Amino acid sequence: MTQSSPDPAQSPRGARILGPSRPGPATARGSAPVVAMIGGGQLARMTHQAAIALGQTLRVLAADPAESAAQVTADVVLGAHTDLDALRAAADGADALTFDHEHVPQEHLHTLVAEGVNVLPPPEALLYAQDKLAMRRRLAELGAPVPAFAPVDTAADVDAFAAAQGGYPVVIKATRGGYDGHGVWMPADGAEAAEIVAAQTAAGTELMVEQKVPLRRELSAMAARSPFGQGAAWPVVESVQRDGVCAVVLAPAPQISDALAGAAQSLALRLADQLGIVGTFAVELFETEGEDGQPTVLVNELAMRPHNTGHWTQDGAVTSQFTQHLRAVLDYPFGDPSATAPVTVMANVLGAPETPTMSMDERLHHLAGRIPDARVHLYGKGERPGRKLGHVNITGAPGGSVDDPGYVAAVRERAERAAHWLSHAVWTDGWEGH
Amino acid sequence: MTQSSPDPAQSPRGARILGPSRPGPATARGSAPVVAMIGGGQLARMTHQAAIALGQTLRVLAADPAESAAQVTADVVLGAHTDLDALRAAADGADALTFDHEHVPQEHLHTLVAEGVNVLPPPEALLYAQDKLAMRRRLAELGAPVPAFAPVDTAADVDAFAAAQGGYPVVIKATRGGYDGHGVWMPADGAEAAEIVAAQTAAGTELMVEQKVPLRRELSAMAARSPFGQGAAWPVVESVQRDGVCAVVLAPAPQISDALAGAAQSLALRLADQLGIVGTFAVELFETEGEDGQPTVLVNELAMRPHNTGHWTQDGAVTSQFTQHLRAVLDYPFGDPSATAPVTVMANVLGAPETPTMSMDERLHHLAGRIPDARVHLYGKGERPGRKLGHVNITGAPGGSVDDPGYVAAVRERAERAAHWLSHAVWTDGWEGH
Repeated sequence: MTQSSPDPAQSPRGARILGPSRPGPATARGSAPVVAMIGGGQLARMTHQAAIALGQTLRVLAADPAESAAQVTADVVLGAHTDLDALRAAADGADALTFDHEHVPQEHLHTLVAEGVNVLPPPEALLYAQDKLAMRRRLAELGAPVPAFAPVDTAADVDAFAAAQGGYPVVIKATRGGYDGHGVWMPADGAEAAEIVAAQTAAGTELMVEQKVPLRRELSAMAARSPFGQGAAWPVVESVQRDGVCAVVLAPAPQISDALAGAAQSLALRLADQLGIVGTFAVELFETEGEDGQPTVLVNELAMRPHNTGHWTQDGAVTSQFTQHLRAVLDYPFGDPSATAPVTVMANVLGAPETPTMSMDERLHHLAGRIPDARVHLYGKGERPGRKLGHVNITGAPGGSVDDPGYVAAVRERAERAAHWLSHAVWTDGWEGH
Repeated sequence: MTQSSPDPAQSPRGARILGPSRPGPATARGSAPVVAMIGGGQLARMTHQAAIALGQTLRVLAADPAESAAQVTADVVLGAHTDLDALRAAADGADALTFDHEHVPQEHLHTLVAEGVNVLPPPEALLYAQDKLAMRRRLAELGAPVPAFAPVDTAADVDAFAAAQGGYPVVIKATRGGYDGHGVWMPADGAEAAEIVAAQTAAGTELMVEQKVPLRRELSAMAARSPFGQGAAWPVVESVQRDGVCAVVLAPAPQISDALAGAAQSLALRLADQLGIVGTFAVELFETEGEDGQPTVLVNELAMRPHNTGHWTQDGAVTSQFTQHLRAVLDYPFGDPSATAPVTVMANVLGAPETPTMSMDERLHHLAGRIPDARVHLYGKGERPGRKLGHVNITGAPGGSVDDPGYVAAVRERAERAAHWLSHAVWTDGWEGH
């Protein structure tokens, strides 16, 4: 029997391939799917790249045609993510509506759901990525490991919490809208705390307070969950922060025990199930010392979308976080999340701290001559000091081990140097001190 | 010294990174480059994905907004590739003009060059990808190994050539416009040859005749060349054809000696230099037996653009052929062309041979459940029997060897099964006979 003479009598069409695979959803899947993504930032831009490969359409709701994703996509709806009619226009005819950021108001999401829009992750889940206090409370209810926390109405609440924790410093956070170090303060004493609370309360910012965790490092457990309930976790990674911003990701995390990595993955998958998350998501973790002196983790943040700590997957995993997010919201079975290299290091490209004398393209040109294995991902964004403009991935050569510090350091050095150069900063050996 | 306190006095800005790197081109590179690509097919679609990562704009000249690339890009010029004004509109303000196919008339290309457009590859080089007879003549002049050939005006020319070659069969080719087995005939005798020549001459098709090479297999040597003259060759791959269409690519080619692989790469780079090619290009090769009984190669075809035998690089090489093409036409130093897995197998997805009962999206859904490590690339094209609709890449797990037949066969089996399923054909074990 040959390729060109199929024999339908032998078995139902394709049955030998399909085996026990789950059938498709009840809704017709006649044409290529359309996914609407709210927000035109770099996450939507990179999700569009993934959608192209899958033969799908990513429709983007952007506030401006110059936004990162709107520059490069054919299907752009212009409007604000706070405008219900703009959200409706983006959702019209789409198979799913999902997010580049967490800022769409809950009431709009509930209205869209009531109107039949397939909002994923659902608003009930997304809430826990929008409101840190709601997240802490829910996770505590679920028995997940979280830092000690309390709501804050007045400076006295912070003082009381600090006293219960054995004193300052503590961490004050805006419950909503913080990112990249914005909306986080670490008062050293009650006077500083009172200043912060006064200023933020006057600005209408809701606050909470948290224990300052004696952390060994930050980890991130990323995974995806489908409406069907399938889960797929990438290797747990180490996230290196500088000035509150993710600077470098080491994937997988070096020097982590199988037990701890497995526990972090299980935690992520369990929380996704309990919260009803759909899509790619990140559980940002503090690695700290447990009561037994062994490393353990506490949940820092939840993000329910592709995430900076997953950018390494574009060049270092069989399935990228962007592809997986599309597979999730469309309820496909998941792609393999395995790493393809012993280590992949991602380093963020940040806007130059002073007026740049060289364009990004010129920097890229020089970088190309120096580090030919740098895989560059630029976002098409205008330069502002410290703004995330892109990232670089470097994969380690086969045969190395992520538990060999010299091997990891060599890959990391190249990734950091590449990103540093694109960030238009003079290269020094000083970054190791950060 | 730290990251945040650069010391410009220590050295010129970035000099420690740049070292001896070549400076940028004399033209200003103030803003992100725009590359115009003529043709809206899958090669332009995938080049757009690469342009997104580099922060560049790919402008596409497409005949129809439904074309593969036009569906997914923001900067589309609608028009025909034979219309000089459409070509001018695409070229307007672009840093380079390049190609998704070889069909732009030479006279238009020369006009564009005369008007200051940066046409790459230049028309003088592109000619050898447009006209097979011109290519054969030039390669023979340059001493490159080619099959015996002759121009054909009448059936008598074919007879005379066949006689000189020791008899039929021989290969008749249209000198222009052939692809995927179209424009190629293998007459078994003079009567068949006469019929072909009569029909094609009546249709105005120029013909040539070639020796039917006793080939062991087909190989492809892909590389890129920049205007500066830098070259970068990917590993030589094996291309498996079925019915004149590339079906499968094994990368690198299994069971090839270092000497032969090196010779093929050197041949490709030398020809690129001698012909003045700029961009990613493919030298399709016949592997045959030399006079010494050892394997050797003859040049079959030249393609001066990303090519089907390079699709594996998207998931199996540090730098993909699409990224490299952009780097070439913009005269960046090249990215590393090394393979990242012991073997990568690419299999083409072809349109179903009968009226499909299942949409491509539904097939993809089932495939996802069965082969989670399949990396799928779909082109958004309507289905026609045998039409190239996409491809699948599978990378072999680390630790294997391309010279281990069992290892390669296992990866190939998965890639072929995945593509076969997306092609909506019943899976059989028969493909091995092809």
